[in-house]
Amino acid sequence: MRLVVVGGVAAGMSAASAARRADGSLEIIVLEKGQRVSYGACGLPYLFEGQVDSIDQLTVYTPDFFRKERNIDVRLNAEVAAIQHPKREVVLRSGERLHYDKLVWAAGARAVRWKVDDPRLFALHTDVDAVRLQQYLEQRQPRRAAVVGGGYIGLEMTEALRARGLDVTLYHSGSQLLHTNDSWLTGRILERLQRSRVDVRLNTKIDDPRSLDADLIVGGIGLKPNVEVLAEAGAEVGRTGALRVTDLMETGLHGVYAAGDCCETTHLVSHTPTWIPLGTTANKMGQVAGQNAAGGRERFPGVVGTAIVRVCGLGVGTSGLSEHDARQAGFQPVSVTIQSKDKPGYFGGREIEIKLIADARTHRLLGGMVLGDQEILARVNVIATALTARMKVEDLVYLDLAYAPPFATALDPVLDAARRLLKLLD
Amino acid sequence: MRLVVVGGVAAGMSAASAARRADGSLEIIVLEKGQRVSYGACGLPYLFEGQVDSIDQLTVYTPDFFRKERNIDVRLNAEVAAIQHPKREVVLRSGERLHYDKLVWAAGARAVRWKVDDPRLFALHTDVDAVRLQQYLEQRQPRRAAVVGGGYIGLEMTEALRARGLDVTLYHSGSQLLHTNDSWLTGRILERLQRSRVDVRLNTKIDDPRSLDADLIVGGIGLKPNVEVLAEAGAEVGRTGALRVTDLMETGLHGVYAAGDCCETTHLVSHTPTWIPLGTTANKMGQVAGQNAAGGRERFPGVVGTAIVRVCGLGVGTSGLSEHDARQAGFQPVSVTIQSKDKPGYFGGREIEIKLIADARTHRLLGGMVLGDQEILARVNVIATALTARMKVEDLVYLDLAYAPPFATALDPVLDAARRLLKLLD
Repeated sequence: MRLVVVGGVAAGMSAASAARRADGSLEIIVLEKGQRVSYGACGLPYLFEGQVDSIDQLTVYTPDFFRKERNIDVRLNAEVAAIQHPKREVVLRSGERLHYDKLVWAAGARAVRWKVDDPRLFALHTDVDAVRLQQYLEQRQPRRAAVVGGGYIGLEMTEALRARGLDVTLYHSGSQLLHTNDSWLTGRILERLQRSRVDVRLNTKIDDPRSLDADLIVGGIGLKPNVEVLAEAGAEVGRTGALRVTDLMETGLHGVYAAGDCCETTHLVSHTPTWIPLGTTANKMGQVAGQNAAGGRERFPGVVGTAIVRVCGLGVGTSGLSEHDARQAGFQPVSVTIQSKDKPGYFGGREIEIKLIADARTHRLLGGMVLGDQEILARVNVIATALTARMKVEDLVYLDLAYAPPFATALDPVLDAARRLLKLLD
Repeated sequence: MRLVVVGGVAAGMSAASAARRADGSLEIIVLEKGQRVSYGACGLPYLFEGQVDSIDQLTVYTPDFFRKERNIDVRLNAEVAAIQHPKREVVLRSGERLHYDKLVWAAGARAVRWKVDDPRLFALHTDVDAVRLQQYLEQRQPRRAAVVGGGYIGLEMTEALRARGLDVTLYHSGSQLLHTNDSWLTGRILERLQRSRVDVRLNTKIDDPRSLDADLIVGGIGLKPNVEVLAEAGAEVGRTGALRVTDLMETGLHGVYAAGDCCETTHLVSHTPTWIPLGTTANKMGQVAGQNAAGGRERFPGVVGTAIVRVCGLGVGTSGLSEHDARQAGFQPVSVTIQSKDKPGYFGGREIEIKLIADARTHRLLGGMVLGDQEILARVNVIATALTARMKVEDLVYLDLAYAPPFATALDPVLDAARRLLKLLD
């Protein structure tokens, strides 16, 4: 019995490892088109601000480790050109054919790239991108950077390049940053960017980056799920553009699973298919796909859309739906924003801001946003957990959260926000 | 219509303020036996390590503020000697009588004190205790301290006195610290205390502190709820020794509410009455009692037993039941302990340890303990929220918690623990 896993980063290696734990005798082959597996791609932006020394520091395990310790055959430079499911065959770009009994497709997503040639032009998606950009930064010592795209990568790269001392202009085609459709959140991030002397141009679409006056151009202009090869083999693509899977992470092709940035999942607040490519979700999906490919019946329930990012020192955490998205999903959103302290002033407490969104009819919590220079993780994770549990604002108000002066305030900011939101709902 | 509130610290001032918000025309009188209201008593230990400059820094609002801004009549040095409920009268120690229509009893708890006289002997419960101890520390410059009691106050005072450079011996009558009945947790705290060169003597009951060879003796030997006066008036005392109240925070006496450290509440995991005197709970109870005394119908659901404390730099967060308590409550506890990192090493990640406890039959999460030098708040609060939502370990495993390298690891330690616990349950 042979399991072939396509893709060796977050979802792929999680799937392979989970399958091994579930079945010690399964033959497991991982095909990775790049030269490295199991690396923390989310850490790449921190190479450029010097927080991470080298990509090796981001590499969790080597192919050798997987071979020796987990009996998983990892093959690098192995790009898949086609899947012939009736024959249960993977066709590699090299022409080689490989039989599979079970397949996990964890081919990830790819960065959208401009189709123009300019030596100043970079994306940041893979280890190869990171090495190229790092060399350029060291050898050319660019002074003025243009970052195109106000999503996660764009904002992380803006922070990283400012930390290196470059002048940065950030271009974003839309009016709202971070795909949140929230003008309050966008306003707060803009304030921080401006305070960090980033020149921000919203509503500015860059069709041809060659026109930009900068020494370095980094494009974070979008991601596309890698679905084409599997779609050609007959797997269904959902409305989001990513692969449709059941909660067993199985595609419509019998014995073929998908996991990670290439596939969609259920949003547990809106109950609609959603595509939110993130490393931590990819790991969980991979776990489920791998277990099931090895004969299990594990179910991945979906996500509530939690994300966190640091922008020039400002922590931005979100979970659930924005008001805009809530309205689209048929809710009647009511929201509140509060300013509070993350802990007492005498323990270095700093300002923290929270926006909570609930449904006017049912009082169900729909989403939350947390902004602050420190201690935002606790607040966004409480919101994420409450969303998963479908809590109402009434439930949130009396949550028994931890309090002692070195850690928090007696009235946690989340409880403060919930209390004020409840008043608007009554 | 007159509301009298007895007690002016956490629960009392929350009740008075909530009543005022609910009813602008109610006459509200607060009777405080001390000389200060609305101060953060939980901050007192941090006076001695220099984190807090003076008690004034812990005072949120003055009586004057309440009088002018909230039209609440705060009377200091007003100790209540009796309640004559048939006549709706409060009798003060001074002999003065005060009519009430509604009453909120928020008289708190008192520290257990030895009935011996020794100038070296201190407790730390009120602002007066803190001032006395602060003066003694400054004037006498004691070098060797004995702290008696391994609960929250004992451990916080141990930390504070070590931070001032005193030699500290900690005596505790039981074998487990922090009322948790958990030898793993106790072991970890002991390690930290020993590393901080605290001499710890467990299973050592001090009947007469005068025998102790020390320049300073601080007793944190227990708390007793202030129930006697109200019990004499006919209010019911529960099995825990604290006042019994409904979820409206009403006692058996019509129109008489109780809130804060003097009353018990429901433990939402064991569904038994519990007495866990904590400031943040007192605030919430006070809110509910105040609103209801002003004509509302707000319900306080109970607590899951969340607590957090710093012990010589080690953060200790707990929520729910220990295995011992779970067994007593009729569950079949299964537990796991894990060691992980709170965030990636390249962002200063440090070790964090988590113990999760679940019921073998239902897989319901019963409790959790989190230990670490940083970032424990996020983890204990996720556990508290999951306990409130009665989540199973299966639900916990797929929680969509926030991940980005500056904040957390891709597999949050809570998820890591849940995953390993699930394996034990299957």
